[in-house]
Amino acid sequence: MSQRMREILSWYAGNPPGVIEKLARLMNTGRLAGTGKFVILPVDQGFEHGPARSFAKNPAGYDPRYHFQLAVEAGCNAHAAPLGALETGAIEYAGEIPLILKLNNSDVLSKGEDPCPAITGSVKDALRIGAAAIGFTIYPGSLARKTMYEQIRALIEEARSVGLPTVLWAYPRGSGLSKQGETAVDVVAYAAQISCQLGAHLVKVKPPTDHVELAEAKKVYESQQIPVKTLADRIRHVVQSAFNGRRIVIFSGGEAKGEDDVLREVRELAAGGAFGSIMGRNAFQRPKAEAIALLHKVMDIFRG
Amino acid sequence: MSQRMREILSWYAGNPPGVIEKLARLMNTGRLAGTGKFVILPVDQGFEHGPARSFAKNPAGYDPRYHFQLAVEAGCNAHAAPLGALETGAIEYAGEIPLILKLNNSDVLSKGEDPCPAITGSVKDALRIGAAAIGFTIYPGSLARKTMYEQIRALIEEARSVGLPTVLWAYPRGSGLSKQGETAVDVVAYAAQISCQLGAHLVKVKPPTDHVELAEAKKVYESQQIPVKTLADRIRHVVQSAFNGRRIVIFSGGEAKGEDDVLREVRELAAGGAFGSIMGRNAFQRPKAEAIALLHKVMDIFRG
Amino acid sequence: MSQRMREILSWYAGNPPGVIEKLARLMNTGRLAGTGKFVILPVDQGFEHGPARSFAKNPAGYDPRYHFQLAVEAGCNAHAAPLGALETGAIEYAGEIPLILKLNNSDVLSKGEDPCPAITGSVKDALRIGAAAIGFTIYPGSLARKTMYEQIRALIEEARSVGLPTVLWAYPRGSGLSKQGETAVDVVAYAAQISCQLGAHLVKVKPPTDHVELAEAKKVYESQQIPVKTLADRIRHVVQSAFNGRRIVIFSGGEAKGEDDVLREVRELAAGGAFGSIMGRNAFQRPKAEAIALLHKVMDIFRG
Amino acid sequence: MSQRMREILSWYAGNPPGVIEKLARLMNTGRLAGTGKFVILPVDQGFEHGPARSFAKNPAGYDPRYHFQLAVEAGCNAHAAPLGALETGAIEYAGEIPLILKLNNSDVLSKGEDPCPAITGSVKDALRIGAAAIGFTIYPGSLARKTMYEQIRALIEEARSVGLPTVLWAYPRGSGLSKQGETAVDVVAYAAQISCQLGAHLVKVKPPTDHVELAEAKKVYESQQIPVKTLADRIRHVVQSAFNGRRIVIFSGGEAKGEDDVLREVRELAAGGAFGSIMGRNAFQRPKAEAIALLHKVMDIFRG
Amino acid sequence: MSQRMREILSWYAGNPPGVIEKLARLMNTGRLAGTGKFVILPVDQGFEHGPARSFAKNPAGYDPRYHFQLAVEAGCNAHAAPLGALETGAIEYAGEIPLILKLNNSDVLSKGEDPCPAITGSVKDALRIGAAAIGFTIYPGSLARKTMYEQIRALIEEARSVGLPTVLWAYPRGSGLSKQGETAVDVVAYAAQISCQLGAHLVKVKPPTDHVELAEAKKVYESQQIPVKTLADRIRHVVQSAFNGRRIVIFSGGEAKGEDDVLREVRELAAGGAFGSIMGRNAFQRPKAEAIALLHKVMDIFRG
Repeated sequence: MSQRMREILSWYAGNPPGVIEKLARLMNTGRLAGTGKFVILPVDQGFEHGPARSFAKNPAGYDPRYHFQLAVEAGCNAHAAPLGALETGAIEYAGEIPLILKLNNSDVLSKGEDPCPAITGSVKDALRIGAAAIGFTIYPGSLARKTMYEQIRALIEEARSVGLPTVLWAYPRGSGLSKQGETAVDVVAYAAQISCQLGAHLVKVKPPTDHVELAEAKKVYESQQIPVKTLADRIRHVVQSAFNGRRIVIFSGGEAKGEDDVLREVRELAAGGAFGSIMGRNAFQRPKAEAIALLHKVMDIFRG
Repeated sequence: MSQRMREILSWYAGNPPGVIEKLARLMNTGRLAGTGKFVILPVDQGFEHGPARSFAKNPAGYDPRYHFQLAVEAGCNAHAAPLGALETGAIEYAGEIPLILKLNNSDVLSKGEDPCPAITGSVKDALRIGAAAIGFTIYPGSLARKTMYEQIRALIEEARSVGLPTVLWAYPRGSGLSKQGETAVDVVAYAAQISCQLGAHLVKVKPPTDHVELAEAKKVYESQQIPVKTLADRIRHVVQSAFNGRRIVIFSGGEAKGEDDVLREVRELAAGGAFGSIMGRNAFQRPKAEAIALLHKVMDIFRG
Repeated sequence: MSQRMREILSWYAGNPPGVIEKLARLMNTGRLAGTGKFVILPVDQGFEHGPARSFAKNPAGYDPRYHFQLAVEAGCNAHAAPLGALETGAIEYAGEIPLILKLNNSDVLSKGEDPCPAITGSVKDALRIGAAAIGFTIYPGSLARKTMYEQIRALIEEARSVGLPTVLWAYPRGSGLSKQGETAVDVVAYAAQISCQLGAHLVKVKPPTDHVELAEAKKVYESQQIPVKTLADRIRHVVQSAFNGRRIVIFSGGEAKGEDDVLREVRELAAGGAFGSIMGRNAFQRPKAEAIALLHKVMDIFRG
Repeated sequence: MSQRMREILSWYAGNPPGVIEKLARLMNTGRLAGTGKFVILPVDQGFEHGPARSFAKNPAGYDPRYHFQLAVEAGCNAHAAPLGALETGAIEYAGEIPLILKLNNSDVLSKGEDPCPAITGSVKDALRIGAAAIGFTIYPGSLARKTMYEQIRALIEEARSVGLPTVLWAYPRGSGLSKQGETAVDVVAYAAQISCQLGAHLVKVKPPTDHVELAEAKKVYESQQIPVKTLADRIRHVVQSAFNGRRIVIFSGGEAKGEDDVLREVRELAAGGAFGSIMGRNAFQRPKAEAIALLHKVMDIFRG
Repeated sequence: MSQRMREILSWYAGNPPGVIEKLARLMNTGRLAGTGKFVILPVDQGFEHGPARSFAKNPAGYDPRYHFQLAVEAGCNAHAAPLGALETGAIEYAGEIPLILKLNNSDVLSKGEDPCPAITGSVKDALRIGAAAIGFTIYPGSLARKTMYEQIRALIEEARSVGLPTVLWAYPRGSGLSKQGETAVDVVAYAAQISCQLGAHLVKVKPPTDHVELAEAKKVYESQQIPVKTLADRIRHVVQSAFNGRRIVIFSGGEAKGEDDVLREVRELAAGGAFGSIMGRNAFQRPKAEAIALLHKVMDIFRG
C-alpha cells in the first residue's frame, strides 16, 4: 500500500475494517492505483435525463454493459450506476471494477423546484451484487432536504456496519437557492461540509463559480478575503471545507464539452487539490477510443 | 429449452434460479412457447374502469374465471389480474396458465391529475396463490411517482428473493406531462428506461406516437436524427431504451378497436422488435371464438 | 349441509378451511339456515351517528346486549358491531349468534367530504372475542380511499390466515362523486367489483338508484342497454358485477322507514338475486316485538 | 386438466392455490402427464451412501446435472435431490422439470441405531431455486423420531403458506424395530399413516414384506384376515392406510437389480394401486439409454 | 477475466453477483491470478493447537500480522484465520489480500472422540472486517456432525444472501471412523461430496491415503476398479466426487515436513487435478524467506 493511500485511510480511522478495505480497493484500482486520486465513471443519466438525451450520441451506451467495459478499459477507479444497470454487468465484469450502487434517483418527468429523489436500491442490494460502496444524492437547498439528510444518515449507518463506504453526490438545488446559487462557491463549500457532517466517505460536488449566494456568507468571504477568483482557488476552498482536506472530494464534469475545455477545467481541479473527477457524459457520449484517450489525459493530470 | 430462450434468460444472469425458472415458464407456455415472444391477457379493467364499462360488451367476462379460460384456450403466455379475480380461478385452472398478480390498482372514482394506485396484494399472496410473477403499475409524470418507485423497489427485492420476477406497467401520466405527452415517444422510451433501472424483468408500455414532449429531449431527437416516423421505428427506439433490448418489452393494445387496426398495429410492433403484446379489452370484449381467432393472428405475427 | 350452501362455499375454494367453516356457520345460523340467504343485524350507529340519534327511539338499544338479544330472538345470521359493543355481550351470548367485528368506524364530529374511518379493532380482537368474521368500511370516491383499500388488503390477508372471512361495507362517498352519485347504479356496481377484487368474502352495498354517474360508464349503459329501470334490475346488475354472482352480496336498508316500504324494497332485492339484507335502524329502532315481526317477514321473502 | 387429476386434487381442498398448482404441475409433467401417476428420479445417494457407491457404476452421475438430464429425457414427473446438487442444474434446466428439494439428509459416516438426519436446506432455499415441493425423511422407529416429526410439522406449515407441497420419505428404522421390521407390512402401513397425519401431500415408502412386526398389530391382521400375501395385497393395504387412498403414495425401488426384477415389482405396485415409483439407483446406475428404456417400461405399467 | 476463470465461475451460476465477484477476486489475486488455481495461507493453529506448538518454531508468527505479510509477499490468493487474528491486520493490510474468516474453531483442551467446534465469528463479522469469504470446519464421522451440518447450512444461506462465498474444511474425524479412516480415500471423497451437497463454494480436504474404510464402499472400489494407487489417482477421484470437478477443491498440506516431501506431494495434487493447496504450518513455521521460496515453488507447480 502506497504511503499516500495509508495517509488518506488514516483519516477514516474508527470505521470498521470493511469500510477501509473498500476505500483501499477504490484507490488501488485502475490507472491511478496507489495515487490517492480518482477518476470514476458515473452513469445514471438514463434515469435522470432519459435514454435518448443520454445515449443517442453514442448508442453503444444504451447497453449498460458498455459502461462497465469503458470503465475497465479506461482504467477508472470505479463505476457508479443505479441498480438495474449494475445488475446487467455485475457477473460479466465480476471483480474487474469496483461498483458504486446509486441508491436514489430522480427523473425529469415532473416539475417542482424542490426535488427529492426516490430510493431505488438498498444496502442489501449493494451486498447482493458485490458493490464496493453506496452512492446517494442530496439536494441542499430543497425544502425536502431534511428527508434526504435523514435517509442518507440511516443508510450510512447501515452501510458502515456491513463494511460499505458512502459516496455522497451533493447538488445544491431547490427553492432556497437562486439558479446561480446552485454552483455558488459558498453554497458548494457548504454542501461539501454538510456531506462530511452526515458521515460521507467521499463527497462529489460541482466545480463552483465565484458567485457568493448567501448574504451572511458574502460578508465573511469579503472581510476575510477568501480567495475565490480562480477555479483552483475555489476548489482549494471547497476541499478545505471538507474537514480541511481530510475527506475525499471529487468533482463532476457536467455537460459534454470540448476536450480542451474539459482538460482546462481538470487542470484547475488538480491545481486546487481535488482528489479527482467523476466524469459521465464527457466520457460515455464520446466514441470509446476517444473517451478512453480523454480519460487517460485526465488521469495523467491528476497523477501530476 | 430453445436457443432463443436460453439467450433471453442469459440477460437475467445474477437472479436466483427461481426467477429464471419463472421466466422460462412464462416463455414455455402457450402457442408462442419457445419463441421468446409473448401474448399476455391482462384483466384489471373491472377495478380500473368499472365492471359495466369492461364486461357489458361480452358479459361472460363478469366471471373472472372466463378470463382464465380465454387465456388457456387462446394459448396465451400468462394471465394478469388483481388478487380477487385470480383467486376465483387459481384452483380450477391450477397449473394451466402462469398467473401474474397485479399488486396495485387504481379506480376512476376520484379525480386528480397525479395518480398513485393502492397496493392491493402482496408478494405473500403471489406465493400463496401460486403466481409466476408480480405485476405493478407506475405512473412516471405523476407527482406521486416517487412513492410508486419506492414501493416497487421494495417489492422487487422481496419478490426476487422468493423466486418471482416482476412485470412493470409503465404508464406516463400526471401533472408533469401534457395529455399528448403520455404517449410521446421520448416519454415512453424514458418510462421503459426507468422501469429497467428499477429492476423490472418485463416492461409493459403503450405504443408511442411520434410526438416528442420534453424540450431537452426534442433537441437530441432532432440533432441525432433518431427515427420516430413509423410505429416500427418508435418501437425499435423504445426497445433500445430498455437496456439495448436486453429486457423483455411488451406493448399494450389500448382501447378495443377493429381487427384490422389491431393487426396493423401488431405488425408494426413485431417489425420494431417488440417482444409481444399484452391485450386486454381487444380480447375479452369480443365473443370468445372471435377473441381467440384474433389472438391467434396476433401470435402468428409475433412468431414471424 | 344443504346443496345450496355447498355450491356457495365452492366459490371460495382456495381459502383455508377455517374461513370456509366460518362462512358455513354464518349460513347455518338462524331462521334462514341452509338457504344461503342472510339477514344480519348491524349496529354501529352509536359510533357513526351518536347515541341519541340511534337509540332514543327505542332506549333498550342503549345497552349493546339488547342487539345480541334481538339478533338471537329474530333468528338473524349474525350481529355486526364495533369492538366495545361486542365485548358487552360476547360472553353472555357466547355461541348463540355469529359476531362480525367492525374494524373501522367514523364519527360525525368533524366535516370534510373525503372520509377515512379510524381503525377501531384488530384481527386479534376478533379472535379474542370469538368473532366469526371481520367487517370493514371503504368509501370509494373519497380521496382517502387508497388508504382504506391498503388497510383492508392487509387485514384480509391477516384475517384469512387465521380462518376469518371479511365482510366489506362499500359506501361510495367523497369529493370524487356527486351526492346523487353515491347511490348511482354504475357507482354501486363499481364499488361491489372493487370489494371483490380486494378479496372480500361478503360485500354489503346500498340499493342503487337508476342514476348513472360516470360519463364513460353512461355511454356503455346506454349502448349496451343494461337494464337499470327497476330496483330488481339494478340489484341483478350489482350482483353480476360481483364476480358474476360468485360472491355473497347483501344490501343495507338505510334510514328507518315504514314496514311497507321496507318490504317492498326487500321484495325487489330478492327478485334481483340479492343474498340478503343487513338491516340496522329499521330493526333496532322499532320495539322488539315489532322488529322481530318485521325481520321474520324479510326472512320469509328471502327464503322465497 | 384431466378428470383424474381433478379428482386427486380435490383430496387436497383447503390447501392454498399455490400448493394445488404445484401438485398439478407435478402431475402434468413428463410421459405420465395427466394420468395421476408418478415416476420420480431421486438422487440423494451421494450424500446418503457416498459418491463412489452411488456413481462409480455409471460415472456420468458424478455430475449432478446428469440427473436433471436423465429425468427430463426419460419424462419423469420430478427430480429430487439435496440443495447442492439442485443448484448445479437449476438454471440450465430451468422450467424443464419440477424439482423437489430434500431438506434433510444423513450420511453413513457414523454408527448409531437411532438415526436423525441433519437439516440441509430451507423452505427459502426451495423458493429461491424455484423448487415445486420440499422433501423430507422421517425414521419412524428411531428414538429421535419425535425431533423429525416436529421438524417436518414446522416445515410443512411454512411450505404450505408459500404454496409448496411436501413429499415425505417414511423409512421405519431405529432401535424400536427389528431389521426385518423395517419393511414389515404393519410398520410400513403405520409409517404411511403417520406421514398423512403429519400433513404430507405425497408419501414415499418401501414396498413391504409380509412380515408383521408389532405384537398387538399381529393379532388384528390375523383376526381380521387382512390380505398381505402378495405384494399387490400389501400395497393395497398401505394405500388404504394413507387415508383410504386419498393421499398420493409412491414406492421406492431400493437397491439396483435386474430389469426383470424391477418390472415384476412395479407390476405388483401398479396392481395394488400405487400412485407410482420413485426410482433412483435402478435408474442412474444404468447407462443412460438403458435407464430411459427401463423408466419408460415402468411408466407404461403405471399408465396401465 | 481469463477464459479459465470464466469457465469456473459458470459452475456457480445462480449465486448472486456478490458471490461471483468474491470468487473472481480470490482467483484474481496473487501469483496465480487468472489461472483458476489457489494457494491459500490458513492460520488457525494458535486456536486449534495452542500458541507455542504453532509459533515457537518461527516466533514472528506470534503476531497475527506476520501472516498477512507472509500471504501478501508470497502472492497467495487469500489468508484464512479466526476473527481475533484477522482483526489485527484487517486495516493495516486493507485491500492487499482477500480474507477468509473462519467461523468455527476447536481447541485441544478437552478430550473426546466426537468433536464439534465452537462458533467463533459471524457473517456480520465477515462483512464488518471486509472478508471475501467465510470458512467453516465440519467433522464428518463425529456424532456431532449433524450440528455442524445444520450450522453451516444456515451460515451458507446467510452468507450467500450478502454476497459471500463459503470455504468448507471437511475433516473426517470422530467415533464413526478408525484413525486410519480419517484419511481413507472413500471417506475423503465422501466428505468432499457432503461439502458440495451442503452448498460449499470451495472445499478443502486432506490428501487421502489408499485405505478404504467403509465395508460397503470397499466392494464398489474393488468391483468398479476405481484407481486409488497413486496420490494423483486419489486426488482425481476426490475432485470427481466434488460434482465431477465443478466445485473448487483444494488440499491441505498437514504437518510441517521437508521441502522435498511437500513438493512431491504438491506435484501429485496438481497431476490429479487439484485446484490448489491450503498450506499453513509448512509455510509459517519456516523462516519467511524460506517460506516464500517454498510457496513460490508450489505455485509454479500448480501453474503448470
